[in-house]
Parts: sequence; C-alpha cells; structure tokens
Amino acid sequence: MNAKPETRNSKLRIGIFGGSGYGGSELLRILLFHPNVEIVFVTANEHAGKSIGEVHRNLLGLIDMNFDRAPENPSRLADLDCVFLALPHGQAMDLVPELPANVKVIDLSGDFRLRDQATFEEHYGRAHTAMQSQAEFVYGLTETNREAIRGARLIANPGCFATATLLGLAPLVANKLISGRVIVDAKTGSSGSGAKPAANTHHPQRMNSFYAYKPFTHQHVPEIEQELERAGDWTSELVFMTHSLPVARGIFASIYTETKSELSGDQLHSLFSDFYRDSFFIRLVKGSPDINWVKTTNFCDIGFAARGQNVVVFSAIDNLVKGAAGQAVQNMNLMFGLDETTGLMLVGTNP
Amino acid sequence: MNAKPETRNSKLRIGIFGGSGYGGSELLRILLFHPNVEIVFVTANEHAGKSIGEVHRNLLGLIDMNFDRAPENPSRLADLDCVFLALPHGQAMDLVPELPANVKVIDLSGDFRLRDQATFEEHYGRAHTAMQSQAEFVYGLTETNREAIRGARLIANPGCFATATLLGLAPLVANKLISGRVIVDAKTGSSGSGAKPAANTHHPQRMNSFYAYKPFTHQHVPEIEQELERAGDWTSELVFMTHSLPVARGIFASIYTETKSELSGDQLHSLFSDFYRDSFFIRLVKGSPDINWVKTTNFCDIGFAARGQNVVVFSAIDNLVKGAAGQAVQNMNLMFGLDETTGLMLVGTNP
Amino acid sequence: MNAKPETRNSKLRIGIFGGSGYGGSELLRILLFHPNVEIVFVTANEHAGKSIGEVHRNLLGLIDMNFDRAPENPSRLADLDCVFLALPHGQAMDLVPELPANVKVIDLSGDFRLRDQATFEEHYGRAHTAMQSQAEFVYGLTETNREAIRGARLIANPGCFATATLLGLAPLVANKLISGRVIVDAKTGSSGSGAKPAANTHHPQRMNSFYAYKPFTHQHVPEIEQELERAGDWTSELVFMTHSLPVARGIFASIYTETKSELSGDQLHSLFSDFYRDSFFIRLVKGSPDINWVKTTNFCDIGFAARGQNVVVFSAIDNLVKGAAGQAVQNMNLMFGLDETTGLMLVGTNP
Amino acid sequence: MNAKPETRNSKLRIGIFGGSGYGGSELLRILLFHPNVEIVFVTANEHAGKSIGEVHRNLLGLIDMNFDRAPENPSRLADLDCVFLALPHGQAMDLVPELPANVKVIDLSGDFRLRDQATFEEHYGRAHTAMQSQAEFVYGLTETNREAIRGARLIANPGCFATATLLGLAPLVANKLISGRVIVDAKTGSSGSGAKPAANTHHPQRMNSFYAYKPFTHQHVPEIEQELERAGDWTSELVFMTHSLPVARGIFASIYTETKSELSGDQLHSLFSDFYRDSFFIRLVKGSPDINWVKTTNFCDIGFAARGQNVVVFSAIDNLVKGAAGQAVQNMNLMFGLDETTGLMLVGTNP
Repeated sequence: MNAKPETRNSKLRIGIFGGSGYGGSELLRILLFHPNVEIVFVTANEHAGKSIGEVHRNLLGLIDMNFDRAPENPSRLADLDCVFLALPHGQAMDLVPELPANVKVIDLSGDFRLRDQATFEEHYGRAHTAMQSQAEFVYGLTETNREAIRGARLIANPGCFATATLLGLAPLVANKLISGRVIVDAKTGSSGSGAKPAANTHHPQRMNSFYAYKPFTHQHVPEIEQELERAGDWTSELVFMTHSLPVARGIFASIYTETKSELSGDQLHSLFSDFYRDSFFIRLVKGSPDINWVKTTNFCDIGFAARGQNVVVFSAIDNLVKGAAGQAVQNMNLMFGLDETTGLMLVGTNP
Repeated sequence: MNAKPETRNSKLRIGIFGGSGYGGSELLRILLFHPNVEIVFVTANEHAGKSIGEVHRNLLGLIDMNFDRAPENPSRLADLDCVFLALPHGQAMDLVPELPANVKVIDLSGDFRLRDQATFEEHYGRAHTAMQSQAEFVYGLTETNREAIRGARLIANPGCFATATLLGLAPLVANKLISGRVIVDAKTGSSGSGAKPAANTHHPQRMNSFYAYKPFTHQHVPEIEQELERAGDWTSELVFMTHSLPVARGIFASIYTETKSELSGDQLHSLFSDFYRDSFFIRLVKGSPDINWVKTTNFCDIGFAARGQNVVVFSAIDNLVKGAAGQAVQNMNLMFGLDETTGLMLVGTNP
Repeated sequence: MNAKPETRNSKLRIGIFGGSGYGGSELLRILLFHPNVEIVFVTANEHAGKSIGEVHRNLLGLIDMNFDRAPENPSRLADLDCVFLALPHGQAMDLVPELPANVKVIDLSGDFRLRDQATFEEHYGRAHTAMQSQAEFVYGLTETNREAIRGARLIANPGCFATATLLGLAPLVANKLISGRVIVDAKTGSSGSGAKPAANTHHPQRMNSFYAYKPFTHQHVPEIEQELERAGDWTSELVFMTHSLPVARGIFASIYTETKSELSGDQLHSLFSDFYRDSFFIRLVKGSPDINWVKTTNFCDIGFAARGQNVVVFSAIDNLVKGAAGQAVQNMNLMFGLDETTGLMLVGTNP
Repeated sequence: MNAKPETRNSKLRIGIFGGSGYGGSELLRILLFHPNVEIVFVTANEHAGKSIGEVHRNLLGLIDMNFDRAPENPSRLADLDCVFLALPHGQAMDLVPELPANVKVIDLSGDFRLRDQATFEEHYGRAHTAMQSQAEFVYGLTETNREAIRGARLIANPGCFATATLLGLAPLVANKLISGRVIVDAKTGSSGSGAKPAANTHHPQRMNSFYAYKPFTHQHVPEIEQELERAGDWTSELVFMTHSLPVARGIFASIYTETKSELSGDQLHSLFSDFYRDSFFIRLVKGSPDINWVKTTNFCDIGFAARGQNVVVFSAIDNLVKGAAGQAVQNMNLMFGLDETTGLMLVGTNP
C-alpha cells in the first residue's frame, strides 16, 4: 500500500464504462492526453476485443488499447481512483452501488441528477433502484458548485441542455433579479442524439431540417428547475423548448427573462463577470456567441442583449464537451485537487 | 393593334426589376411556368446582356432571354400589366412614382411596408421620398388581407420573418386570446442574406454556426407590430429575436404566448383551422413543423404545443417562396382574378 | 383499338409498388402532377393504412391517399396501364412474372438490368429466379435507347451511377473515339443510400465526411460495361470508383479518357451536341457542371475539358430524379406515346 | 529572476506574418500551445491594433495579444529564431530577401516552391523577383525530405493538394513501380479558398455543390511534377483535376495508377508501411480513409485498393493542418532539433 500514494502522484488510475458512444469517445479524446491520468480500461460490450482506434478512427495511432467487456465483478475495482460512466440511461443505477467505496464516480447519464424519485420516474419512464446512492451524489455543474464537487465522491454530471441553460441563468437567479416566467429556446446539434443511427439523424433529411421536439417535456427540465431552486430564489415558471439543428456539435440557448428593474448591457456584463470571476471556461462575448467558436472545446460563451426590463441571455456550448465529457473531466480535476483546466485546453478552430 | 387585347387575355405581360438576386431568381423559377404569364423583361444592370440561364444556371435550357438594363423611362411601360420589384431596399421608392398608373406593382423590398414615415426612417436608416405612394400600398400577407389585395394596384410584399410570425400569431390575435408579452425566437437560413457573398455567409464558418443577430432591432419588428395592430386588439409587448441557421433555405419561428384562458391542443387546432379555412398554403401539422418539408414551396406549416395558458406556435416557411417570391405571385393571382394557387403548386422534396 | 384514345384522354392508370422509400417518394412527387396519370394505389407494407402525406410530409395537403398493402394477387391488376416497382433489390423478380401481360412495368431496382445471369448473381449476391422475364426487359437509359423503350412492355430503369456514367461516355463510345482504359471517379449524395438510417448516413459523421467505398466492385459496373458494349466498340478497361459526398442529392462523375486523336473543346462540344440533339434533358455546360444546378430536376448536365488526347467528361445528375424516378417517368412517357418531357418540367433552384 | 533568461533560451522566438487568414489562424492555434515556442508578434495590416481573440474568436481567452502592422524594417528582426509567412501569393518574395540571415523562414505561400522561374511565372501569373533566394529554399514535404529540412534555413511549405498527392504517390514512385499515366481526382473543402468571402464559398450555394475547377491548370501541378521527379524515376503523365467539396475542411485525393506488375493489397501495405516507417503522421487504413477522421489534425490517412495492375491510392488530409500550418510546424520542429510531433498532437473528433 505504500506504493499507492506514489503511483497516485504520477497518475490517476481511471476506468471508462461505455466507451463506444459519443460521450465515451470524447472522454477518450481528452483523457488520453491528460497529464495526470492513466486509462486502465474502457468497456464497450458490443465492441469487446476490438481496437479502440478502429472504432473511433479519429484516435487511430494515438491509443493502443482494445475495448473490454464490462467487468463481471465491479466490487473488485478497488485499485482504481475514478470511473466515468458513459452508459445509456438506467445502467448507472445498477452499477454505482456495486463499486468499491474508495472509487470516485462521475456519471454522465441522467440516473443520479434528480433528487426526487417521483420526478425521476416520471421523466425517465423507469423505476429508480438506487435512491440511497443518489443522496450522496453532487450535481456537477462546475461553475456553480465547485466546493461541493471538490469534496464529492459521486458526481452526477449535468445534461447538455441543463448546462447551457443554467450557466446562462445562474448569475441572474443568484442575484434575485428575475421576475415573471422565463422562456428558454434551446437548439442542439445532431450528436446530441448519440452515435446510433435513427430517423431524426438520417443525413438526407437532417441536413435541411430545423424543428422543435418534446415540447415542455424534455427530461432536462426538472434538472434545470431543481438547480435553479438551489441557486437562488427561483419561483418563476420555466418554459423550455428543445429544437434540432443541422450541425454535428453545439447547443445554443436563447434565454428570455424579465428583470425586476432595468439593467444596462454594462451592468449585465459586470454582474456576469463577477459571478464567473474564477471561471476560466466562461467567456463573455459582445453581442451573440456562436456555436462555431466553442465547437470541440470546454468553453461556454455567453452574451446578452437588454431592452428595458427584457434581458435575453445567449449561451453556447459544445454539447459533447462542456455539455458532457469536458465538464466531467473538469469535475475530476477538482475532485483530485488538480487545476480545473488540466487536460482541457482544447483549442477550437476557426473554420 | 386589335390583336393586343386578345393576347392580353391569354397572358399577363410582366416585367421583373432586379432579376439577379435570390428574389428575382425565385420569381423567374415560378413565373416561367405560370400558365397566365408572359415575362416581357428582366432587369439586372450588372448582368445586362447576359443570358439569364448562364447566371441562374438552374434555369439553363428553360429560358431563352437575356438580362436587360433597367429602362430609362419607366413611364413608358404602360403596355405591361404588372411589375415585380426585387430591388435592394431604397430603389423601389424612386421607381414606383414613375410607373404608369395602369401598371400594377408588387414590391418585394421593405420600401412601402411601413405606414409611418418616422418608423421607416428609423429602421431603414434612410429618408423616405415617396410616402404619397405608400398610402396606396396594400400589405400583401395574402391569408390575412385577401380582399384588400384583390382590389389593390400596389402591393408591399411582406418580409420573410414578418410572414412566418404573422401567420403564426394572426389567429390568436384576431380572436383576442393573447395576454402579456409575446416572444418570437426566429431563425433563418443563409439565403435570407441575399446572393452577394459576405462574412456571415462564408461557407467554412457558416456551415458550423448558429448565432443571434440584430437583437430587438430587426427591421421586420415594426412591420409585424403594425400588422398585429390591424389584425386585432394587439396591445402586447413583442420581443423579437433573429438567429442564423446553417441551411440554405427556411425560416422557423417559435412563438411563445400566454393566452387569457387555458386552451387545449384540439381547441387550438380548431381555431387555426377555422381561421385558415380557405388558405390552401397553410398546413396545420401535428407537433412541430420542419423547414425540410416546406423548402422550395409556398407552404407555411404551423404546429403548436400548449401547457396551461402557455401556448407555443411553431411556424415554418421557405424564406424565398412564401417569404418572398411565392407570396408575391400569390398576390398577383388575386389581383388579376386568378385562382390563388395558379403556378404555385411547387412540390417540396423529401430529402 | 378505339378505346385506346379514349383511355388516353382520361388518364393512365398507375400503381406504385414500394412507395415509402426515396424512389417511391420521388415517383409520387412527379406523378401527382403528371397531366396524364391517375395514381390508383401505392403500396408500403410497413405503412399500410397510413396517410401518404403523413409519411412523406412534403406531400401533405397535396395527396389524399393512404398507403396500401401489396396486393395478394397481382394477376388481377389487369385494369392498370402501368406499374412502377420501387422495391428493394430482389423483390421485383418475384412480382414481374405474376403481373398481367397487358400491364407495362418500369422496375427501378437492379433485378432486371443485367442480361447475364451469372453476372447478376455475382454482383447482387442472390439467385435470379426470373431470367425468362429478363429477356423481355429493355434497358431504360432514355437518351441512348429511345426507340426500344417506345415499344417496350418491360423497362429495367438504370442505376443512378450507371446513368451519370453512360450519358457522359456514350457519345465518345458511339463515335469509337476512346483508346485505353477509362477511369470513372463517381461521387454520390447520401440519399443514394436510401431512406433507412444507417451508420454511413448518420448525420453527425456524414456531414464532415468524404470517403471511397466498394472499390472496383460496385454493382453498377457490369451494367455500365454491358451498355457500353451495346453503345459501340467498347473494348476498354473500366476502372470505376464510388465515393460518398456530404450532400443529400446529386451524383457527379469525373470520367477520364484518352481519345484516339486529339480533340478540341469545340469538337467535343459538337460531338456531344449532335449526339444529344433531341435530348431535352441533356444540358451541355461550359467548364464543369455542378450538382447544385440539377438538384430535384431530371437534367443531366455535362461539361468537359481536354488536353491533348486526355479528355475528361464531367456528368452531374440528381440521383433520385434522372438517376431513378424522373427517368422512370420519362420512359413511361415514351411507352405511352407522350412527349418525353410531360410532367418532368421540374425546375431546380438557385440556392 | 535568473530562471527567466533560461526559460527564454528554451523557447524559440517566433513571428507570424499574415495572421488573419486561415493559415495564420491555424498557426496560432498550434503555436500557442507549443511548449518550445514564444510568439513575439503576429501581423495583419487590416486588423492592426485589434485583439487577436476578437478576430479569431476560437482563441478568445487563450491569447492576450493584438495584431501588429507588418514591421517597416524586417532586417531588424535578428532577435527572432523563425518567422512563418502566411501571406497572399507574391508577398513572401518581397519579404524574404529583407530578413536577417540568422532568422529561419517557413513560407506557406507558393512563392518559393518552384525551382523553375518560367514555370512559376506561367502558373502564378506574376514575375518572380527573388529567384536567388529560391535556390536556398528546401521543399517542406516532411515525410519525403526530412534530412534536407533539418539543415534548412528556408522552407517552402507544400501546397495542400500537393501534400495529399505526393504522400499518396511517393512510395510507388520511389520504388519505380508506376507505368503509364497517373490520374489524380482531388477534392477540397471550402476553407481551401481562404477566409475572404467569394462567390464559390457563398453558403447558400456551396452547401449543395460539387463541381470541378481549373481543369489541368491548377498551380499545384508543376509543384507535384517537380517533386515526383525528385522522388524517383517519374516519367509518367500526370492528369490532375481539382474539385470543390461542401465541407469546411479536408482534401481527399483518389490516385489512379497502373503498376508495372500486379501488387496485392498486402504487398502495397508493406511497401507503404516500410516507406513511412518513421512517419508518425502517416496512418495506413483498411479500405478508404475519410476526411472526417483527419479534420483538425496533422495526420495524412492513406488507403488503397488493387485489381490486377490497377492500384488506386486514397489520401486524406486536413488542408489547413497537414496541408499548411501543421506541416509548417512539423518542419520547424525538425529545423530546431525538436521531436517532429512536438505541439502537433492535435486529436481529431468523432462527430
């Protein structure tokens, strides 16, 4: 056991459950070059035994590992420091209670985000079988929850829509500025639907499409409301509408609010600037952000416009990075005392 | 000369001013196959003398005409039945007063849409020099203004955003159902910026972009407000936000309203269905429309979702057709006693 | 024989087998507005009973029919004039022998294109069970085979790649100008893979992809070779390579040849111009064609470049129109004595 | 404070001429995180004084520098180690002779690639005013020219099409395997046309386009021929055709050759594998590469197919990285004794 701390000094031993989807693919892209991480295994039952670089051909030549089958006995994984769960909704709740108590967990699914069992079961359409574990989970929106994340063993990593929305609203809610209902018109790229082909991601139609879906009923709504209540005096009604964009990556949320008093653009800028003073990954922009400028990165770009008491906040992220794998690694960094940005200087591209 | 009236009976003699842009290109696509139309000339100063089919290569083999220079003396065009003006903002106001009084005019620009000179000058950033003509103009939103259009000599064809927004809101406003502010989150394809290359339509960046622009200040806002006031008891505040989509064609408006009382989906359907009873080009859809299904057509697809008093209307059009050239021809049909759909059975495609 | 003209006056009675795919969708788009056609039924087993406009939402409001289940007894369809088969490969060979002898058939699949049974079985990976019917089939490349098509009862409609390639090569082969091997670098849009979602048409990846597939082995190769042999003194080797483009529609073939003697651009133009003198749907363009200009239309745009004995022909079509449904209707027109272009004035769009 | 100079010693002092285009943008993206580089200045006359992160908004928050005007007296730049020239064609030839003899130069333009003045002047349409400098330039195709690059002071960085083509052909040419003419069907994304909006990169049309351009006459042809002659016994005719793809990034070359004798896929693999034994950035793939898998990276993915003596090589790169800025940095690494991959572990993404 003496060796362990030394090993730790050099590298965190990491396992990834669910490495074949887009969440897993992005975790691999980031963790492979994280200076403090050693990837011990990556599971993907349907690809077990296959070379990771053959499945995620962007990683060809960069990784010399095969996908593993999920371990039959997760309780024996005590020599790991941390596992990332990038599994379909419903699988993490089976796995988490089996894991050794010393292993930290970052779950990218929706299984442990909601505190209220009934709300979970209504929105996810399944029974929750591990609510006792849920109580230990910390919601992993890094910028609003840093201290709790540092001390957490279990992280429920936020949904992509929830991330974009909460980062846009938190400064206003925390400062008790909002009056009346809030409307969030949110749009997502096609990778948000996952790596499995489906009618709504069929290229011949998707490339010319824009449409709304799941009106009022998206499963990220209760997650957003739960966290807004925690952030401040949230008593507003939330109207949340999801739409599909014909791009691969990106979420753009247009957030329509009324403020209790009139705020100028400069006042808004100060407010957000103060709130995100220590948040490297929040970039305040003049006018509107653009998903083009955050694609493949962990940034959340925020802009706003104001007219009288109408304040519109625009929030743009990459759904797979700040909306999933990037934020997961950001949380891991905090949980292990590393600088929040370690391994996350993912630079976007112009075209 | 006796033959002339007979010829006229068979075909309307039409001139197009401004044939090189996308509005002109779409007018040509439609009017070339309109059974009651003879195109007499198409102007495009920078292409004067060039074959139209060489400039708009989609029309190659279908048209055997060259672009003309704009006529020096428009007052001599009395042998025309109708002219379409697809000119940059600011040019129609010079031309209209010069045209003979017997020639009908359909102006696709913003020059004559606004009744109030000060509002025009504020939003278009130029002096209006033909307000006396403006008073004669009828606003050409066909579905809400049919009778006036039938009798009009001068038509101000609506803006693309205004068309999508007004068609989504008119049944609610006419029935005095709206309470509180209305938020319109509108998105447009890149052809909305015209045929001239610019930074915001540069392919390497646009293909991965989504962003907001002109917050609160888009020039279609006063046009929408003016027409909502005419449609019913509009007293609400309008929050109107424009965004750019990485597709070539299409406008999608998500319209957030509160109604005075709760309305079910079925009630909404009845309401819209009644309001658009005689409107072939309005299609009510289940759930959300999709710009993919209206591209290249004159349809406006409308869907909605309701929760309590929150009613969200989704409206989708092709910005160049129902949002410009298609509606212009629809108006021409009415003005000359033709069936509204003549020449407009433009069938969309699946992929 | 007296009845014939009367029937004609009324409408050709048409059935479509396989209406849910892209071939069927395009047949519907075209035939709905064909002045001489009455659509009697459209089959789609998985959608039987559903409104066609709900499945192909581009047709909403334009068609008031439901999908039917395939008729159990095709031999009773004698009151039809013509059927279109837009079925998966392998199904037409079961159906054709069952159809009444008076019903004309246009098969869009590959089942009856190849004269040689062994070649068919090698390339399609299945036994051919109706070679006796195959002998009656006429290959439906309209521009090179008009007379035979006029008299045919059974048409094997060409493959999309074969259409683009053969139309580009036929004038050179018919004039015995080619020496040495011919290389065809062909590229197709994603709708060529059909309406069913699959990994290679998954939007998040396809939108940024370009790759080659099926090197040397595409099933259109023997079809092209068979028809080139019929067209002239074809003895060259054909190197045919298919690639995937990130657009919905379009095939572009770059055809590299060596000619027996040097040909100028003007000579090439004359040669092609003569060969396609009566072919409305062939447009010869200066320089390169562009799939943008033929999308949604029945045109094949052809251009060329020459340097010494190197002649490169560029051929562009819409894979679903001239490469499938449009050419099928063009053939139907000929088979029933109609003008070849009837119902096919599908005008493309600029953006 | 003693450490500072040492730190400086370990960093190369770099200047970038022409930082506002895509080449400059990519150089910045890479060099900002290069562990051995300090960026001293970035010129962009039209943006002089502006924050770099405001112009290249992907870099916002990552760089705290402004664009500079080009220095009036380049001869005073002796305290630099290296300059990158990402200027429009024709400007480097003015600048290079002015630079101090101790400063290394990597020119991304076409000014110094061609040894023969007449060939240059024919293809670039301008006089060459610095042929005496040209003689000192080393052609920077890293994988085929490593030793010369290590010792070079002046590097002519290859064109993007030339890079993809030469890397696909070099192993065959070096091994004297090719017989007969070689056909290269090359396709490029829209960023290859640069950052300045133009008709051929106008989004509404480009997104649905595919077309050929500059048949036989692309300025990379003489560059390719010059380097093939240096690589081996090149005596073949080269038919080179460029096409435009509707993606932002990527070049895909399909290279059609005949080999003197039959080669199996395995033999080809061995041949390429040996040739590129020490070349980290060449990845040999099964079947076809895909531009999706190399986008934003410095990789060149190569695949092939063979039938008899027909060998087709497929080569895919990112035109802005391996085709420009990435290869430039790869060359800089060699010139300064660093590992070739330093700062170039740019990991691509799956969607």
